[in-house]
Amino acid sequence: MIKRKINVKSVMEPKSIAIIGASKNPSKIGHAIIKNMLISGYVGKLYAVNPSSDEILGVKCYNSVLNIRNKIDCAIIAIPAKIVPQALEECGKKGIKGVIIISGGFKEVGEDELENQIIEISEKYGIAVLGPNCLGIVNVEKHLDSIFLPTYKMKRPQSGKISFITQSGAVGSTLIDLIGESSIGISKFISYGNAAVLNEADLLKYLRNDKQTEIIVMYVEGVREGRRFYDELKKTTLKKPVIVLKAGKGKLASQAAASHTGSLAGDSKVFSSMLKQAGVIEAESLEELFDLSKIFLTKLPKGKNIFVLTNGGGSGVLAVDGIEKYDMKLAELETKMKRKMKRILPKHVVVDNPFDVTGDSGNDRYRIVLDEVVKEPKIDAIIVITLFQTAGLNAEVVHDIINASNSADKPLIAVAAGGAYTKLQLNILESYGIPSYESPTQAVYVLSKAYWYKRKREKNARNK
Amino acid sequence: MIKRKINVKSVMEPKSIAIIGASKNPSKIGHAIIKNMLISGYVGKLYAVNPSSDEILGVKCYNSVLNIRNKIDCAIIAIPAKIVPQALEECGKKGIKGVIIISGGFKEVGEDELENQIIEISEKYGIAVLGPNCLGIVNVEKHLDSIFLPTYKMKRPQSGKISFITQSGAVGSTLIDLIGESSIGISKFISYGNAAVLNEADLLKYLRNDKQTEIIVMYVEGVREGRRFYDELKKTTLKKPVIVLKAGKGKLASQAAASHTGSLAGDSKVFSSMLKQAGVIEAESLEELFDLSKIFLTKLPKGKNIFVLTNGGGSGVLAVDGIEKYDMKLAELETKMKRKMKRILPKHVVVDNPFDVTGDSGNDRYRIVLDEVVKEPKIDAIIVITLFQTAGLNAEVVHDIINASNSADKPLIAVAAGGAYTKLQLNILESYGIPSYESPTQAVYVLSKAYWYKRKREKNARNK
Repeated sequence: MIKRKINVKSVMEPKSIAIIGASKNPSKIGHAIIKNMLISGYVGKLYAVNPSSDEILGVKCYNSVLNIRNKIDCAIIAIPAKIVPQALEECGKKGIKGVIIISGGFKEVGEDELENQIIEISEKYGIAVLGPNCLGIVNVEKHLDSIFLPTYKMKRPQSGKISFITQSGAVGSTLIDLIGESSIGISKFISYGNAAVLNEADLLKYLRNDKQTEIIVMYVEGVREGRRFYDELKKTTLKKPVIVLKAGKGKLASQAAASHTGSLAGDSKVFSSMLKQAGVIEAESLEELFDLSKIFLTKLPKGKNIFVLTNGGGSGVLAVDGIEKYDMKLAELETKMKRKMKRILPKHVVVDNPFDVTGDSGNDRYRIVLDEVVKEPKIDAIIVITLFQTAGLNAEVVHDIINASNSADKPLIAVAAGGAYTKLQLNILESYGIPSYESPTQAVYVLSKAYWYKRKREKNARNK
Repeated sequence: MIKRKINVKSVMEPKSIAIIGASKNPSKIGHAIIKNMLISGYVGKLYAVNPSSDEILGVKCYNSVLNIRNKIDCAIIAIPAKIVPQALEECGKKGIKGVIIISGGFKEVGEDELENQIIEISEKYGIAVLGPNCLGIVNVEKHLDSIFLPTYKMKRPQSGKISFITQSGAVGSTLIDLIGESSIGISKFISYGNAAVLNEADLLKYLRNDKQTEIIVMYVEGVREGRRFYDELKKTTLKKPVIVLKAGKGKLASQAAASHTGSLAGDSKVFSSMLKQAGVIEAESLEELFDLSKIFLTKLPKGKNIFVLTNGGGSGVLAVDGIEKYDMKLAELETKMKRKMKRILPKHVVVDNPFDVTGDSGNDRYRIVLDEVVKEPKIDAIIVITLFQTAGLNAEVVHDIINASNSADKPLIAVAAGGAYTKLQLNILESYGIPSYESPTQAVYVLSKAYWYKRKREKNARNK
């Protein structure tokens, strides 16, 4: 098997890149790629390859990679499918060990022969090929961005702990754009399209060993090497959480997936139970994938006992609904603590769990209650619901919540929803690593999944 | 029963309002209410009542409502609970027929006696009392806004077709703020708190007969007159859709609800099946409540057959997953239409359902395909997925989608997710009444519920 000889690092962390198909024409993909690479400030050496230009956006342009004297780690190919094999052959001759093929027009449109040529050339020269029919990669630490979508339409995230592996460029870029809008940040983004050479298992293994990556999020339609994928997943979840959204679950959907990336989707029930066994958290939708990936930014809960703090009674009730629905528990409060709170706080405050400081609360009540519960051993997780819309709260309450999260020995997550004012506060909280959710029910759901992961990881570690 | 004599209109559409507890002090609720009433530009006569001021923000201030010579339709009370009965008694003497009691400190904190006094005075004088312990109302058409939350923290929605009835002020204001941020708009918002006098059934009946209201959204924790509520629901769903989020479903949660608005939650399964029978759409979470309320802004689907148009293959696959999950159908395309599309469109476009115009599509492909399907009789609903992040699409595609929606004889809904650029496009779509969703799966879910409602309404109409 050729796989042992190829190295994902030449794709993910190249010190020099040639863009084959770089173009002066702003409507071409090859233009967008070189432009975004310059905007993101790629830290390595950059070369353009296009027989009809001398330079593009100030980058020297060559006829072929064979005419470049210096060593090149990675080539990004954005030219018509028909001429991709020839370009790849030249990469092989030049000794380039990593190639990202952005171009579509292969197996996904029935051009299996063209895709087989890619595989053969990759094997012949030992090239790690990502794609074809993909968006390529983002490596935030290396300022490497091969995505051809304009930055004014799709925001690029800041540096963070989450890495993505996605088969679909559309789904991937939606996620990137959503995260770009928040303060969460990512480490790596990998869109792998048809997976002619590098597949789910290879990329997962790479991210498992990547120090910057602490959380792995995947969108897959079908899997090539099922058994190897399972083994890689199982090894990976012992080190870091993996969240997977599997699309193409039904019969109809798997047909749609075939015409998309030419992959076979397989039986969804078998797939789901395989994920579970491997300790993977499965998401049911895009929103869930996003929500679940955030929860691992904070600590893992040691048990099921949740404490709910709120200034809106209705939101507290919804959290309790969630606690019952997802089989978690309402933490019991110590009598001593309750007595103290009743002494300090106004009479109409509901000193219980949910702890309702009520709509006229200022920051002080949040601070007083959080001070008591962050160290409380019978509480395994804290949900802080904040109706930022009330007149009494000022923006300072965000710092009280951040301070509480920092001193807590348990996860603290925020719940709030609303317009611009509320979104700003949530952005601040997330920039300090506090996951935030729009609905109390969803907050409990993600905590229940984090708790499941913790126990499963311990179990899998024992049985290793 | 006193109920027959009271009139919800005096609360909802008063021509004159007295604010009892209006205050010069910006930290008081009575200040926020009068300020917001002035900001919103209430179209009727406004009076302030406070023994210690002569005028407040330019509004003449009286000792008591009894000193005001002109007729007053409605009083808004924001004073300590203890002195509310006396103020209400004065309202009765003055002949005021509608009163909104914003103040808390009644049944929800165990002061049942105080709440009983409210009920007695209401019966004695025939006053329609909303509250206590509530946010009051917004009537967008009358520029009436009794909500004491600052406008810079909570946006107020523009005029629209959706009306809200909410027991919890927190949940209600979150929804208002979310809708205020969008282009959707509302007609009425009613926060009814403890429901001492006016309850779910009364408010529902009012909105059923309200011409501006086309969609009714409710958040309830418990219900007072169960049988009457059911009858009102059944009558209402024959005229307009009703979407309900019931909180406090489990045993624990119903305890939390009791300490919030003093209501008993009842058995959740019985409640859910009652809603179903009445033709009500039940939401499981706040997000769902929001998502479901939007779908009724467009036409109802006549059948299950959905057509999916996308420029991202992965998103198409997720839509198909949804179609199988929620028991809808993928519409079959006419051979003639397929042949025509294959002739006009580039070879790599997937002419099928999902119809994938692929990532390099410009506006033209969207326009060409939509032109074909808006009148196609075998298609009952259209989902347009747009990855606005791609380089080829410009903002004009939004107009193509709006034109298609206007000329379609079926619902057309949009799916897109992302940062600022995408959000702007979605806002434009929603301002033209096109519901939009972040996830393809969710789009199918809401369509399936709209279809369920249509059939249930027909069935209930037959059995009337």
